[in-house]
Amino acid sequence: MILETAKIKVATENRADFETALAKAVSDVLSKSPGFVKFEFLTGEEESDTYLLHIYWNTLEDHTVGFRESDLFTQWRGLIGPFFAAAPEITHWQVN
Amino acid sequence: MILETAKIKVATENRADFETALAKAVSDVLSKSPGFVKFEFLTGEEESDTYLLHIYWNTLEDHTVGFRESDLFTQWRGLIGPFFAAAPEITHWQVN
Repeated sequence: MILETAKIKVATENRADFETALAKAVSDVLSKSPGFVKFEFLTGEEESDTYLLHIYWNTLEDHTVGFRESDLFTQWRGLIGPFFAAAPEITHWQVN
Repeated sequence: MILETAKIKVATENRADFETALAKAVSDVLSKSPGFVKFEFLTGEEESDTYLLHIYWNTLEDHTVGFRESDLFTQWRGLIGPFFAAAPEITHWQVN
């Protein structure tokens, strides 16, 4: 299983709207992508303007090809992208 | 609940010994610290020389005070510290 970590900065005044949009984006879009396993949502202690999204996939390609090259990715970014205060930082990790 | 993330670089030739030492350090030391919840162990896809440790704590202070100021921390670093190829990067996140 692969963990995708996404660090996303959001301006303080947009946090409530971002969290609402994120919940909709997960339930209506992300969770429908083949290979999606689960989603977790964390907030920074040191980086208080930053969210950490944990998205688990069956394989790396389920994210990098299956999701990113699909219409679902366009919908996902359409819902949450307007709240990004910087480019998100994405990394992938093999769960042992 | 708090997630501590620790990014740890280990030289390729030391990976097997590090993983053995880490398993012992978690079972014999880390898991005995008050407030410890669970441990996960991941390996980097983009950063192939880097491990990502996920350590869950009941509160931030269970890690930053309770563990770090205890003899257990000395034992923990004694077991795995010799394998670090760079200073570990530690951050904390509130689990939502």
